[in-house]
Amino acid sequence: MQDVTAKQDLAARWFESLRNQICDMFEAIEDDGNKTQLGHKQAGRFVRKSWQREGGGGGQMSVMHGRIFEKVGVNISVVHGQFAPEFRKQIPGTNEAGDFWAAGISLVAHMQNPHVPAAHMNTRMITTGKNWFGGGGDLTPMYDMPDAAKQFHDGLKSACDRHDESYYPAYKKWCDEYFYLPHRDEPRGAGGIFYDQLDSGDWDADFAFTKDVGTSFAETYQTLIRQNMERAWSDEDRDNQLIKRGRYVEFNLLHDRGTLFGLKTGGNIEAILMSMPPEARWP
Amino acid sequence: MQDVTAKQDLAARWFESLRNQICDMFEAIEDDGNKTQLGHKQAGRFVRKSWQREGGGGGQMSVMHGRIFEKVGVNISVVHGQFAPEFRKQIPGTNEAGDFWAAGISLVAHMQNPHVPAAHMNTRMITTGKNWFGGGGDLTPMYDMPDAAKQFHDGLKSACDRHDESYYPAYKKWCDEYFYLPHRDEPRGAGGIFYDQLDSGDWDADFAFTKDVGTSFAETYQTLIRQNMERAWSDEDRDNQLIKRGRYVEFNLLHDRGTLFGLKTGGNIEAILMSMPPEARWP
Repeated sequence: MQDVTAKQDLAARWFESLRNQICDMFEAIEDDGNKTQLGHKQAGRFVRKSWQREGGGGGQMSVMHGRIFEKVGVNISVVHGQFAPEFRKQIPGTNEAGDFWAAGISLVAHMQNPHVPAAHMNTRMITTGKNWFGGGGDLTPMYDMPDAAKQFHDGLKSACDRHDESYYPAYKKWCDEYFYLPHRDEPRGAGGIFYDQLDSGDWDADFAFTKDVGTSFAETYQTLIRQNMERAWSDEDRDNQLIKRGRYVEFNLLHDRGTLFGLKTGGNIEAILMSMPPEARWP
Repeated sequence: MQDVTAKQDLAARWFESLRNQICDMFEAIEDDGNKTQLGHKQAGRFVRKSWQREGGGGGQMSVMHGRIFEKVGVNISVVHGQFAPEFRKQIPGTNEAGDFWAAGISLVAHMQNPHVPAAHMNTRMITTGKNWFGGGGDLTPMYDMPDAAKQFHDGLKSACDRHDESYYPAYKKWCDEYFYLPHRDEPRGAGGIFYDQLDSGDWDADFAFTKDVGTSFAETYQTLIRQNMERAWSDEDRDNQLIKRGRYVEFNLLHDRGTLFGLKTGGNIEAILMSMPPEARWP
């Protein structure tokens, strides 16, 4: 048990440290945004807000509204308690009491520039009767951007390959299947990787992989933002972006398991819906 | 059977006639919009688009983007076919083959002026082994507007009372329970009436009631629009309107049975999502 507590502690501290690295990285991008179309506006800064969870634990949201990031949220949380009986069957390793502990980081970035893709990343550690990791990262360009998509996938593939060459093909497929809008018969974006219930038997290796997913995502996404943020855009590009964001809303409210699970189980509404775009259109 | 066909014919023709009345009424409001904040823009006109349903029947959308109505859709449809086996249990009077016939009208209006409430109305006739009617109308002001809400409810109450004094209290309650966002613990709007599976044993009476709901809704809503459309609004009012519309999106995609049923059963996406607001925000 002491061993588990030490692992939980390491994981929770990592998610916080990754949050700090990412927030610094994104604020630096805001500072470097003078030559962008909204360069006359002030550089954005993250605003933090903590919340407590009824039943145990809590989290902290960091939200920034800037000149590069129209709205970006980076949530961290450490929660514990008991799963309701109706959920226990769906969760591996759940004991009779339904005890669980979970910590994670979740990031969603909606960008001002329609030529800069939106992105999402989430990694987490969960303990029931067993421990596992899950997470992933994916990209949502507003237009078909094959080069950006390739760059993003290459970054995540390198991270995967450093740990296990079977990971990338499996997790890429999982992501493609997950981020899909059946009612429109279209993918949400350009994909990425998605994994869950990762427990290879070597906790240290699984943790190292999860850390690598987080840092590789951040590095690759930062590069993509910096490469595209000075491109000019038109009112037409903006319209197209707002319509594409409507699809993002449809996915999150109709299909995203995390969102639906959170809303059904009385999670923190503000933290759960932080993923929603700042503005969207259905013309 | 000939009797049923005659009833279906009467109902389908009524929904089309109501659609025509409402479209004329709303275009006349557009024409009278010179003194409104967007009075310098051209008066809007409905654009019609037909669609066919795989499996039988089809419908016609009428959508207008105007200076009073930011986006208003009025759909009519007449469809028939077989319910999939998994739905049969939920539907009264479904025979072994799962045959159904359904016709209806559905209206959603999102207004330019944040001081004019949004509104929704839908009435339908359904035949399985039996015939019934369902529908209702409800109002979504962007602010608390007790007088407008009272006026709207009074209009629908009069329509109800002309047919059965037990209707209004029961259908008002049904509406309050239905148009509710549990995750936010707030109602979608100011309510109205909602009824379903109405089969009193007197088809003519039920049809007369359904017609009255449609025309009373249209008259009362028209009055409300005309009373408020010349009020001035600020950027702040617009922001508030877009946030309130975000809640509307949340309701439609998370809870609205019609939307979810339509999307799951491969209905016409464009017609189903016509109810979505033209623009919404999650700041």
